Amino acid sequence: MTTLLAPASRSRERVRTHPVIEVFGPTIQGEGAEAGLPTHFVRFGGCDYRCSWCDTMYAVDPAVVRATAERLSVDGILARLESLSGAPRWVTLSGGNPALHHLDALVDALHGDGFLVAAETQGSVWRDWLTSLDRLTISPKPPSSGMASERNVARFHEFMDAAAAARPVSILKVVCFDESDLTWARDLAAGYPSLPLFLSAGTPVPGPADVRRAVGDRYRWLCERVAGDPTLGHARVLPQLHVIAWKEATGV
Amino acid sequence: MTTLLAPASRSRERVRTHPVIEVFGPTIQGEGAEAGLPTHFVRFGGCDYRCSWCDTMYAVDPAVVRATAERLSVDGILARLESLSGAPRWVTLSGGNPALHHLDALVDALHGDGFLVAAETQGSVWRDWLTSLDRLTISPKPPSSGMASERNVARFHEFMDAAAAARPVSILKVVCFDESDLTWARDLAAGYPSLPLFLSAGTPVPGPADVRRAVGDRYRWLCERVAGDPTLGHARVLPQLHVIAWKEATGV
Repeated sequence: MTTLLAPASRSRERVRTHPVIEVFGPTIQGEGAEAGLPTHFVRFGGCDYRCSWCDTMYAVDPAVVRATAERLSVDGILARLESLSGAPRWVTLSGGNPALHHLDALVDALHGDGFLVAAETQGSVWRDWLTSLDRLTISPKPPSSGMASERNVARFHEFMDAAAAARPVSILKVVCFDESDLTWARDLAAGYPSLPLFLSAGTPVPGPADVRRAVGDRYRWLCERVAGDPTLGHARVLPQLHVIAWKEATGV
Repeated sequence: MTTLLAPASRSRERVRTHPVIEVFGPTIQGEGAEAGLPTHFVRFGGCDYRCSWCDTMYAVDPAVVRATAERLSVDGILARLESLSGAPRWVTLSGGNPALHHLDALVDALHGDGFLVAAETQGSVWRDWLTSLDRLTISPKPPSSGMASERNVARFHEFMDAAAAARPVSILKVVCFDESDLTWARDLAAGYPSLPLFLSAGTPVPGPADVRRAVGDRYRWLCERVAGDPTLGHARVLPQLHVIAWKEATGV
């Protein structure tokens, strides 16, 4: 646990560098429990998944990550954040899968700067620093992603055991493209009834000419299915708000 | 206060009738703190405002309300709700301005049926039953509505004094169509720093052919303005989610 590190070890942590794809903001969080709230983003390169509809392949594809990621220390990341305008309360750590990295010192430093810190991960790799977050969004990938293998689901349940023992401020978020995804999300979430459940209408990748229409139509389908399902009276259904605002632009 | 009513008085309350425009659901709440959550709606007829961009004039215009509203008792409203499918946790009381009506017994009865109860009002008329809600959305109307007169603003502050004394679970929500609305919202909200602030991108009435595009473009404007404003780092920005899903359909 970060809080047990000796001072020398903590300062070593601050010079360790991480592969950063982009630091941007302030923008509006488009998904999950903080949807609609101003936030800065730090996007890390690298992912252990290859989702069929990944909308951030530039942070996943190893060749692209090698060519474009900048190695930044905690202080380097803080300097980039301090150069941004606005005064959002939140910094969101994203990816790729940010849980591939050792971000204990970064989370501590962001807290020291007065930020609330959120991260999103698919729930494949546990790290103790996830416990220090103000929000952990756990977003397991449903069948349409091509990643819902038995092995990945088993790892997800191991991740959830670790999260339950550590008690971070967690929500479950599942992207739903079709009926199979929704059924999968409902069955999976039933095993974790104490976690708030967010269902996010999937955005096609690559987006069609009228991506807002595509998102709106899928959001309507998801709203109607969830509203009518007596087992999902507690679930919150959202579109990707950043797609409603900016369509497919990145870095916003 | 409802809770001080003698039993005879409480049963009289249950036979009192109210002008109901529509009872529908389950649908997805499109705005405010419960945005994205399944809910039933009860829409009451009558309003003390005439907002230029009102999207529910069929619950406001006195001639239409007289012609179409059904007078329902608390038991009549409950029967309608029980005939609906799904199992949302919430019932939302809307209008028009539901605070024109004496809904103490209805809120009690809905709680008795296990529902959480929300209501939205512009903050012009205080009622003690608002204290019993699980969510009170206070939505003062900005300049573009044509309703932000000095007299209405003074009444709003009186309403807020009553709300502060009664301590319901409140949020502030302001619809923003333009810069004047946003400035007005920011200044008004600064007087109530303990209340969560929701800013809702206005939907044009009547809607253009591509209402999702119009909403998306205004939402983008509002996101960019709020994200960059150091005084609004805590504000949550949302589009009207029901417009994203269903465009201008009513009763969904």
